[in-house]
Amino acid sequence: MITVYGFSPSGNCHKVRLALEQLEREYRWVEVRSDDGSTRTPEFLAKNPNGKVPIIELDDGRILAESNAILWWLAEGTTLLPDDAWQRAQALGWMFFEQYSHEPCIAVARFICGWTPLDSPRRAELPVLREKGRAALAVMERHLQANDWFTGPSYGIADIALFAYTHVAGHGGIGLAEFPAIVGWLQRVTETPGFTPMAAPDAFAARRIAQST
Amino acid sequence: MITVYGFSPSGNCHKVRLALEQLEREYRWVEVRSDDGSTRTPEFLAKNPNGKVPIIELDDGRILAESNAILWWLAEGTTLLPDDAWQRAQALGWMFFEQYSHEPCIAVARFICGWTPLDSPRRAELPVLREKGRAALAVMERHLQANDWFTGPSYGIADIALFAYTHVAGHGGIGLAEFPAIVGWLQRVTETPGFTPMAAPDAFAARRIAQST
Repeated sequence: MITVYGFSPSGNCHKVRLALEQLEREYRWVEVRSDDGSTRTPEFLAKNPNGKVPIIELDDGRILAESNAILWWLAEGTTLLPDDAWQRAQALGWMFFEQYSHEPCIAVARFICGWTPLDSPRRAELPVLREKGRAALAVMERHLQANDWFTGPSYGIADIALFAYTHVAGHGGIGLAEFPAIVGWLQRVTETPGFTPMAAPDAFAARRIAQST
Repeated sequence: MITVYGFSPSGNCHKVRLALEQLEREYRWVEVRSDDGSTRTPEFLAKNPNGKVPIIELDDGRILAESNAILWWLAEGTTLLPDDAWQRAQALGWMFFEQYSHEPCIAVARFICGWTPLDSPRRAELPVLREKGRAALAVMERHLQANDWFTGPSYGIADIALFAYTHVAGHGGIGLAEFPAIVGWLQRVTETPGFTPMAAPDAFAARRIAQST
């Protein structure tokens, strides 16, 4: 049995849940908030010295961190990851794009809007984050004008990785109206077998998001 | 034949050169500076819409972006990547750690010190980048107190990925004196077969680094 430590409204954490659901794997979910210091306790740091969720733990105590590495490990040998070496490398390229050029803008803008006070000095970062987020979306849009998926010829873990925060980009004030190919792809993702929606932000975060965007 | 488009003093680009050298692969290197707009020309954006080096191009025109995805593709089936699925996932976890928690602090601090004017407003970012960079190094130090390498039981691509900017952390004003296990690991990396040092910053960047740290 796999134990996931994760914060349900986090896109990085939801990646792991979505893959497990779509692969019909059994798992146990332990909720660990990433906005209240729970990932910085001595107990959690003993599991992941980098102090981040998600992580997975196996029954023998072995731990794997980093959402996209977890996706890769879960997907090996399944339909969520192609066999062809070049396609696998392209999928991995999109997953590194997600963590370097996409998540630090789109997810962070969402976090600031929903999970920091309305007078937080971090809100000064929003204009730049939104501009960089739109640039990342433009790269995705261009790919989707010629391709249906990011994982090769069919849906897979690079799509899961990019779906996580793209579908809630609006929470950070980044609209998708100018990206029609992305909107079509998001719809296709929701129609894949076993698709499971991400937990909505709680009422407090939802109110902040509404006041921020 | 593989063509690499890269900027020689960039750690992300050097990763690809080091792996190719250690794997004794033939390649052609096309120098593309990342500090003068060369990665933003229409010609380059046609190759990588994300406007970043390194990329590799095959003889048939296929292109792969993202340094760590390139490392993975080059290393498949070689001694630089283990066969065991769990060890491979751990290596990948360290490579995502590198791109998310390490490079955006340690490499960016170095870039600001060496490749922006001495009065650049970006220099205000340095204290936070250095603090976060030291936190990333502390995570590596803890791992190296119990392990020789980041790629499983032997040297491989996660070590190449983390070596790239760790060994020049000082260029960004982040000293390694408090991380003895890292210093030992850096030395072991330089002793691996086929090790090739990274190009030094040019004289202009080197002078700025000396004035910044």
